[in-house]
Amino acid sequence: MKNSIILLRVLTFILVLAAALMTAPLVMAFILHETEMIKAFAFPIAVSFFAGLLVITCTKKQRTHLQAKTGFLLVFLTWLVMSFFGSVPYYLSGLGISFTNALFESSCGFATTGATTIQNIEALPRSLMLWRGMTHWFGGMGIIVFTVALLPIFGVGGFQLVKAESPGPEQEKITPKIASSAKILWLVYIGLTVIVMLCLKLGGMEWFDAVIHSFGIAATGGLSTKNAGLAYYDSAAIEIISTVFMLLAAMNFNIYYRIIRGKWEDVFNNTELRAYLGIFAAASIAITLNIVSDYGSLPEAFRYACFYAASFLSTSGAVTVDYQMWPSFAQTILFGLMFVGGCSASTAGGIKVIRHVILFKQAGNELRRIIFPKGIFSIQINKKVGRKDVVYGVAGFVFVYSIILFITTLVAAASGFDLFSSFSASLAVLGNIGIGFGTVGPSQNYAVFPDHIKWLYSFVMTLGRLELWTVLILFRPAFWRR
Amino acid sequence: MKNSIILLRVLTFILVLAAALMTAPLVMAFILHETEMIKAFAFPIAVSFFAGLLVITCTKKQRTHLQAKTGFLLVFLTWLVMSFFGSVPYYLSGLGISFTNALFESSCGFATTGATTIQNIEALPRSLMLWRGMTHWFGGMGIIVFTVALLPIFGVGGFQLVKAESPGPEQEKITPKIASSAKILWLVYIGLTVIVMLCLKLGGMEWFDAVIHSFGIAATGGLSTKNAGLAYYDSAAIEIISTVFMLLAAMNFNIYYRIIRGKWEDVFNNTELRAYLGIFAAASIAITLNIVSDYGSLPEAFRYACFYAASFLSTSGAVTVDYQMWPSFAQTILFGLMFVGGCSASTAGGIKVIRHVILFKQAGNELRRIIFPKGIFSIQINKKVGRKDVVYGVAGFVFVYSIILFITTLVAAASGFDLFSSFSASLAVLGNIGIGFGTVGPSQNYAVFPDHIKWLYSFVMTLGRLELWTVLILFRPAFWRR
Repeated sequence: MKNSIILLRVLTFILVLAAALMTAPLVMAFILHETEMIKAFAFPIAVSFFAGLLVITCTKKQRTHLQAKTGFLLVFLTWLVMSFFGSVPYYLSGLGISFTNALFESSCGFATTGATTIQNIEALPRSLMLWRGMTHWFGGMGIIVFTVALLPIFGVGGFQLVKAESPGPEQEKITPKIASSAKILWLVYIGLTVIVMLCLKLGGMEWFDAVIHSFGIAATGGLSTKNAGLAYYDSAAIEIISTVFMLLAAMNFNIYYRIIRGKWEDVFNNTELRAYLGIFAAASIAITLNIVSDYGSLPEAFRYACFYAASFLSTSGAVTVDYQMWPSFAQTILFGLMFVGGCSASTAGGIKVIRHVILFKQAGNELRRIIFPKGIFSIQINKKVGRKDVVYGVAGFVFVYSIILFITTLVAAASGFDLFSSFSASLAVLGNIGIGFGTVGPSQNYAVFPDHIKWLYSFVMTLGRLELWTVLILFRPAFWRR
Repeated sequence: MKNSIILLRVLTFILVLAAALMTAPLVMAFILHETEMIKAFAFPIAVSFFAGLLVITCTKKQRTHLQAKTGFLLVFLTWLVMSFFGSVPYYLSGLGISFTNALFESSCGFATTGATTIQNIEALPRSLMLWRGMTHWFGGMGIIVFTVALLPIFGVGGFQLVKAESPGPEQEKITPKIASSAKILWLVYIGLTVIVMLCLKLGGMEWFDAVIHSFGIAATGGLSTKNAGLAYYDSAAIEIISTVFMLLAAMNFNIYYRIIRGKWEDVFNNTELRAYLGIFAAASIAITLNIVSDYGSLPEAFRYACFYAASFLSTSGAVTVDYQMWPSFAQTILFGLMFVGGCSASTAGGIKVIRHVILFKQAGNELRRIIFPKGIFSIQINKKVGRKDVVYGVAGFVFVYSIILFITTLVAAASGFDLFSSFSASLAVLGNIGIGFGTVGPSQNYAVFPDHIKWLYSFVMTLGRLELWTVLILFRPAFWRR
């Protein structure tokens, strides 16, 4: 009972906060006289504030230590509530967006997947476009951190939550105090967004586009204000800026904390970072060599190669030229990157580089064990001997990831989509990438999928965003027992 | 030096034995007056016997305890020598088979992959067809066991080899003595082959076809004497017999030992067997429901569904109707089975069911650990609490399997094959299945691939057959240090 009240109060608070944020697009709708959108934003804002008032007056503040498992439930419910709340403006926009499509768009936002069912993005009202960008930006890392920062206000010892919310298996504590570490993450995130925004503006974008694109890039959501994505601008500068910042956004945010503190040695010794940059470099070079004859110019080939290597590896899914026209070797590399994902504790999705690093080291140990049967081998991470048993969690994660990928593929295939398109779309959704191969190429549009697939995909992308366990434990009967 | 002489003597002995076995097709060529084939078989036999005589007279018998790592090298070299030796009759057949294609056919045989580059199988001389069947049969389990049984004759303590040769991570000792356990495995294998042979004869095949098909089924190689595979016979009886025995051949052979000893409780409690049969049943039913409208008859749909579920799960790759004409849901299930493979300690290839079982249980433990943070969870196999650290080996294996799959796909894609065909063919080869999707469908023919891909595939199927580590440790510098 006590727990339920806490959950209700926290969720209401989050809802009210989201409503407060929604006033920004509301103001924009006013200014631009987007009359339909004024209604579409005002209605959910009003309902949320009223609900907030009701809950706060009818319940009392509780002080208790929340169990880890209740924390997980709270994280999942937050995502659920936000996805539904965020879908209302789409549904009420008067653009004929069905409720399913509205929910899909909103889920894509908060899960930073960047997929869409909207045929003509450029025809969207600007205020709705702003809201679309905001859902990405808050989804990316915002909600994660502010849930962590807000929970203590409600009298909850929020520490245990960190496990649920920060992506990646190697949880490093930045500072002992959650609220203060949340602030640092916020500042890094805001800093990154502002810098990329300014760079894009200087690169030739108009202000509004620069804002929306900066939201997409910092959140590794990859959304664009243009139907053709970045190909619209045909600008090397804008593509290079996007490439660099997609890469930066998918880096472990602890790295920035270390850089701020001047601990360069830690940065240099970071195993995941080295692997991540190594994979990016190898993929970029291999693709460049493969596509250079198609473009005739080495710099141009290199620019596209780096862009898509960054876009897939960071799970952004931002697009420019059509990579499905590339030779299959280059496509295979991008396909491989879809299984990698960004770094842990970043805004990226996917399996994450650190998990691959751990499995790679474990495989090496197996070989050593055959040659030296009496040897004892540990796993070194960041030049320190790590606990070997991280392999347990990683193995379980990757297995469950594969099973969910398979089941999602099956459901898509059951609706008549070809095997490879089904597989690729499911992978794109589970890894929060948004683009893939076959039906969901660079000009991807999820409108081709029937409604039940869109519901499934909305769920699966949230599952991927919350690192599986957060959601999966809710399906275990033991979770609900006292 | 001492080790080199042992390796030389063992390999020569194996070569002479293979030459002795090759006299069977030679005799057949004599009887059927296949004059080109007489030469094609007589030449390698003569060379092998001469080489054998030379090595045995020039070297002295050595007695030493062979290190595990040298055992691994021996296993790999055996496969290499056999693949090359087995390719000679194809090359000398006068049928215009290139050396690369000859090696590919022979490698497919000893790796029980059952892929082919031959366009018209029915036009092959019968003696060469017999040799083709024999390579499968000996590849399937024969060479594994007889290497284990023969090594002691050469004064080598062969016990450590078991690890290298018996497929699957959960090595169970049948009896303490290798030679005697080898004999039991042989008897089971021979028994299975003879029974399926008789059944196929009764089902309407002529004797020669029954023999070759029984070799293919017992070895889970899936080869056929007909261009259309089993579709040629259009016989429910033959398809049902094949289905049942492909399933039996991919079961852990220890199960048969338990059955012979009357230990039915062990059989019933065998975790891998239960999972294996469960996967088969689920896949068969799901496919049946999906394709029943295509065939209009439930029994016919069920028969094809079971056939292909067994063919893919057991990594046989035997074919009848064209499953690429099925709806994509059914195809996706077969695609999923390509990642599973048969049971450990069987003639099947692939990742193997037991590894999936271990990862599945590990994933369950991870969920439990979140709900009960202070609990300690083990992995139960065969109703006994198992060692949790089997997960280490399995995680390493699956990771390396994925990496090899990716690299092989990349090389195929670099030759211009489309992404999904490259992926599917590489998976078919690494898992010793032989059939897949795209270019390598049920009427698969690897003749479309350029020579360097055939060489790579020959190597990769051997890698898959020898459970990766056996071959991979040879690439570590530490292996070659004293």
